Amino acid sequence: MNGRHAMPHAAFVLEPEAAVGDMLSQIDTPALLLDLDAFEANIERMATLAGKHGIALRPHAKAHKSVAIARAQLDAGAAGICCQKLSEAYPFAAAGITDILISNEFVGEKKVAMAVDLARRVKLTVCVDSSLQVHALGLAARAANVAMDVLVEIDAGQRRCGVRSEVALLDLLDCIGKYSDVLCFSGVQAFNGTAQHIEAWTERREAALRSAETVARYLRCLKTYGFDCPVVTGGGTGTAEFDVETGVYSEIQPGSYVFNDGHYGRLEWQGNNAPAHSLFVVSTVMSAAAPDQIVTDVGLKGIAVDSGLPIVISQSGTSANLMVRRVNDEHCVIESGPDALPVLDTRVLLVPSHCDPTVNLYRRFIGCRGGVVECLWDIEASGLSR
Amino acid sequence: MNGRHAMPHAAFVLEPEAAVGDMLSQIDTPALLLDLDAFEANIERMATLAGKHGIALRPHAKAHKSVAIARAQLDAGAAGICCQKLSEAYPFAAAGITDILISNEFVGEKKVAMAVDLARRVKLTVCVDSSLQVHALGLAARAANVAMDVLVEIDAGQRRCGVRSEVALLDLLDCIGKYSDVLCFSGVQAFNGTAQHIEAWTERREAALRSAETVARYLRCLKTYGFDCPVVTGGGTGTAEFDVETGVYSEIQPGSYVFNDGHYGRLEWQGNNAPAHSLFVVSTVMSAAAPDQIVTDVGLKGIAVDSGLPIVISQSGTSANLMVRRVNDEHCVIESGPDALPVLDTRVLLVPSHCDPTVNLYRRFIGCRGGVVECLWDIEASGLSR
Repeated sequence: MNGRHAMPHAAFVLEPEAAVGDMLSQIDTPALLLDLDAFEANIERMATLAGKHGIALRPHAKAHKSVAIARAQLDAGAAGICCQKLSEAYPFAAAGITDILISNEFVGEKKVAMAVDLARRVKLTVCVDSSLQVHALGLAARAANVAMDVLVEIDAGQRRCGVRSEVALLDLLDCIGKYSDVLCFSGVQAFNGTAQHIEAWTERREAALRSAETVARYLRCLKTYGFDCPVVTGGGTGTAEFDVETGVYSEIQPGSYVFNDGHYGRLEWQGNNAPAHSLFVVSTVMSAAAPDQIVTDVGLKGIAVDSGLPIVISQSGTSANLMVRRVNDEHCVIESGPDALPVLDTRVLLVPSHCDPTVNLYRRFIGCRGGVVECLWDIEASGLSR
Repeated sequence: MNGRHAMPHAAFVLEPEAAVGDMLSQIDTPALLLDLDAFEANIERMATLAGKHGIALRPHAKAHKSVAIARAQLDAGAAGICCQKLSEAYPFAAAGITDILISNEFVGEKKVAMAVDLARRVKLTVCVDSSLQVHALGLAARAANVAMDVLVEIDAGQRRCGVRSEVALLDLLDCIGKYSDVLCFSGVQAFNGTAQHIEAWTERREAALRSAETVARYLRCLKTYGFDCPVVTGGGTGTAEFDVETGVYSEIQPGSYVFNDGHYGRLEWQGNNAPAHSLFVVSTVMSAAAPDQIVTDVGLKGIAVDSGLPIVISQSGTSANLMVRRVNDEHCVIESGPDALPVLDTRVLLVPSHCDPTVNLYRRFIGCRGGVVECLWDIEASGLSR
């Protein structure tokens, strides 16, 4: 053999996982598959729910991190988008999306500079729960001669961020008032993440109503002291159907509804409010050396397991006889029930239990319809967590 | 206010998290911090261990995914590197690293094409545990007129990939022999991941010795049937000190040793074999609205929790009074013991429990020495999991 380095060769570039027109079996794995029929139905279902109640829909881009999906949401009537991090907002702003809420607190000189930078380009709304933030933002906005809208986050029951009393809210409003030339108080951010994943429908509904009561208490306080509060934003995929009926929210901000991950899929739903699974990780059987298991080529770097192990899906739906036993860094070990195990090089579809951290592991969605690749959508904000 | 969109502004580009010369408090977070003193000591310690026993060190690049770190390992005497995925090997090959072992099985037309592509550029070694793989690789290598070395993976006790019997090994050797013009059988891959994280030192040692006995059994079989087996590669961070003394391995392939994550930190070690923590996630207190907790700005998209919650480190070492209670998508909730909680905008250092999936979430290491940023190292293979 004399050819080890003898052949001429083209540029040393990785091809994308798939090309438009590819069949499922041609996709290089692991890859992130978006079932476009289910995705579009999810987009439509949530837009209809919000529209029917006259409530704005501001979908959360932290779930998908993709300009193409944000555009699909805006085309379906969304009022704007949420981002959870300032850096995450950059690709959306660069792509011309003009109304962005950073639904989360941030502090420090570099973060404030990013907010000012964004506020030059888009209608930016930010969240605060501390006067230190307000002072830093106000001074920087003045120095740069830019304006931004400000929401005060209130703790709606999650016990994470947000003010915990009416006094704290009013103190913050005083502080914001000192920068009224550049900071415009526009309302409250009131998301309760804990309520989203309560399994039983009635208990989830009760938690959503309790959050709404908390929000209403703060709103009464604002009214008493003469503050306008045009924006009351909150709610998520698990509680949206209840949130829209409470009368307290001006807009809802669900994110996962476009995908419906395994964790949301385990909840009890009523009527047609359950979103459909649209997000799958495609993996390939890479080893079948043992008689009682297969190993596919996706691990912790391609699928998040913080909310449980992935579910194996066969062509005809959930495959109860194929169970994921463990996920290592680069391997997914699947054990078999009575069914025969798929052979080497078979594609195995997995429903990730948690969409947000799974999507963040990839650079593009492979959009499929009827088993054929229809589009590749960049995940521009992948890895942007600052 | 008339300036919302009135100001001229520079290009809309995200700055890196830090610049050379920055102090810890100037790093934008979340960021991945590499303590260079600890890192260099870890590199040196493992190189010395292997060198003392005359065994080759082929560090695993799946842990760091960074050309700069691979170069530091090669400069310290490493024989080459391991990658776990073909796509992961691309940036290393492009950077001129010439000896790469893909320590894992792969199947399918696109994967085989990538292997052939790599084999044109570097001394490529691949792993197989199925004749289907061998036929596909052999035919493609012939068509492209390239050669590669082939290891047969044997199951050394992990029950994941690899042949499980001497018969299966010999059958594969027959198959490889049919492509002897392009495929060169060079030995066995024998990694036991399960043994790496056994907490008790003596039990971990026993597991390593059992793996070595299994390997020795296969080696006797190869000798009996007249096969040369120059390469016997395996071992990892948790068992390296035992692996080098067994006499069966020609090389070891540890990866995590450069970082020593929280999971490895919880093991029992003897002598000076424990690597030092060199990898930290820097986060910032972004909300302190509650009296009994703080929230820092890193979540599941910035730190892996599959092997446990992160550990909070204070300037003087582990801070037992600050405990991570939960990690959400973008938040880390830390509760306090008797110590006063850090105030807003304080930097909080976390030791990730699992280095590999944590590193994969970032695009660069912030190399620090004595609290000052000394270098930024790209993580070129971040997200390359195919």
